[in-house]
Amino acid sequence: MKEFELINRYFKGRGITRRDVNLGIGDDCALVSVPQNCQLAVTTDTLVAGVHFFDDISPRALGHRALAVNLSDLAAMGAEPTWVSVALTLPSIDPQWIEEFTEGMHEIAEYFNVQIIGGDTTQGPLTITICAKGTVPEGKALRRSGAKVGDWIYVTGPLGDAGLAIESRKQGFKIEPEHLKYVNKRFDYPTPRVAAGQVLRGLASSAIDVSDGLIADLGHILDMSQVSAVINVESIPTSDAMKSSLDFDQQLPFILSYGDDYELLFTVPDSNKGMLDLKLRQYGVDAVCIGQVKSGDGQIELLYNGEEFNFEQHGFEHFAKEQV
Amino acid sequence: MKEFELINRYFKGRGITRRDVNLGIGDDCALVSVPQNCQLAVTTDTLVAGVHFFDDISPRALGHRALAVNLSDLAAMGAEPTWVSVALTLPSIDPQWIEEFTEGMHEIAEYFNVQIIGGDTTQGPLTITICAKGTVPEGKALRRSGAKVGDWIYVTGPLGDAGLAIESRKQGFKIEPEHLKYVNKRFDYPTPRVAAGQVLRGLASSAIDVSDGLIADLGHILDMSQVSAVINVESIPTSDAMKSSLDFDQQLPFILSYGDDYELLFTVPDSNKGMLDLKLRQYGVDAVCIGQVKSGDGQIELLYNGEEFNFEQHGFEHFAKEQV
Repeated sequence: MKEFELINRYFKGRGITRRDVNLGIGDDCALVSVPQNCQLAVTTDTLVAGVHFFDDISPRALGHRALAVNLSDLAAMGAEPTWVSVALTLPSIDPQWIEEFTEGMHEIAEYFNVQIIGGDTTQGPLTITICAKGTVPEGKALRRSGAKVGDWIYVTGPLGDAGLAIESRKQGFKIEPEHLKYVNKRFDYPTPRVAAGQVLRGLASSAIDVSDGLIADLGHILDMSQVSAVINVESIPTSDAMKSSLDFDQQLPFILSYGDDYELLFTVPDSNKGMLDLKLRQYGVDAVCIGQVKSGDGQIELLYNGEEFNFEQHGFEHFAKEQV
Repeated sequence: MKEFELINRYFKGRGITRRDVNLGIGDDCALVSVPQNCQLAVTTDTLVAGVHFFDDISPRALGHRALAVNLSDLAAMGAEPTWVSVALTLPSIDPQWIEEFTEGMHEIAEYFNVQIIGGDTTQGPLTITICAKGTVPEGKALRRSGAKVGDWIYVTGPLGDAGLAIESRKQGFKIEPEHLKYVNKRFDYPTPRVAAGQVLRGLASSAIDVSDGLIADLGHILDMSQVSAVINVESIPTSDAMKSSLDFDQQLPFILSYGDDYELLFTVPDSNKGMLDLKLRQYGVDAVCIGQVKSGDGQIELLYNGEEFNFEQHGFEHFAKEQV
């Protein structure tokens, strides 16, 4: 068989139909219309079996997750997700697996009003590459490079849950069943902060999604903006699951360097702080201020209740996140 | 290492810089501007090692080929290629391999004025997924569904060369060295018919690129257009390499059902035939008329010098193309 050619069977005629899709699945290309005065935002992310997810991941969760991590990049630009292309490499044809996988993908696509406009299905080791497209009003995209000295640093939600889910599977941490259920859901079905990203347009000075961990992703903003930052560690939001399952020192690597939470990390000029807090509340986003931008050359100063906080003492520099 | 994060080193700051790219590699998304009155054309194709290419393929050829097959889909829509995202999964880091691979990709990208605007590099079995974007004037895209009874059927160049290259490696056909060099180049460095595709806008009624073989790809046009076709087998263009290396019966499976040639197959209303022939000559495209659209339900009638031509007699129905 030249191609698995599943795209038509499992993707065509399912999911939502957007009016700006002029030609969907089934020709050499899809054709879409970008609104006037909008830029097109484009991102690509690949998930590889055994590297980015456990082999025993539920296919529904995998379908959700593969799309979610891409939509999260669009959210971090303040873009409205519109269309995605799905490249699916499968070792063999298991109709039930594919049905569940596509179901998981269609669910999140419909939730965010995203249309799957095409793709390619090939035989090989399980790999999913999605190219997600979105639109953003001309000049309003949130870049990593706009943070200025004095801007406040925010995060849209608790950090560390995804890491706790992964490590509890690998290391067998003792976690209460309801907390385990919560962290597993946070890892398997991450929610890209699409609405929050759009609220931030015109208010935030920079943004990124927390995929590599707070320290690493904040580092990207600082490098691109040529500034430094101070972070108040005790302000970083954590879930009840995290608080109940680990003591503070154990929490640190998860909160500071694990990633995979897909919350947005962003900076806001002091003059926009009031309006931002108001708008985020209107949209039900519990964003928390965790620090401030300073002048400097990409350094991150950590404070704990105002006291300088030593990286090595808490050992998390040596905590090398492995792929799952 | 979380990601190979090669995108910056091997892709950023190399290749062409288009003025419609507002933000290239290095942020959560790229940002581009689609011209007013143009639609965006999007296509994705994956190449998997051992399935779509030989393990011993030169990395430069692989880089070229991975992009070429995607640009060919844009050509088949009459779109102008503009931006591509590259998802590269590599088993390990071999700097020389990556250098040659990206060199091959940059060469063809520059030739067609295409900018690599982003991507993802991950660890895993060698796989390349490209999502190519292009623009096409509103309503002018070439679809598979527009062929009408009486339209002439054309192909932009010789068929079967890529198949001859593959099978000569596997079966050791005796081919003159200069012919072998030619067919290997046709397979390793296919040329997407980008200019031809744009010339066809407003003149052709349907188009597709020959990736699955003439019979299969013509079948896609016929199915989508709800018509049938008659093909004059002796009119199908073949290379000197093909003519010299195989006798007519041996040539048939390559010409009719092998694919991978990435020529365009298209249909033209009789009223546009004169203008089309003129324009194609102006652009140096040697397109050849190989048949005509008839009424019917997707059947392909083959004639050889006006005589009905029997599939089974020539045995090519039993020739199942395997992946390389």
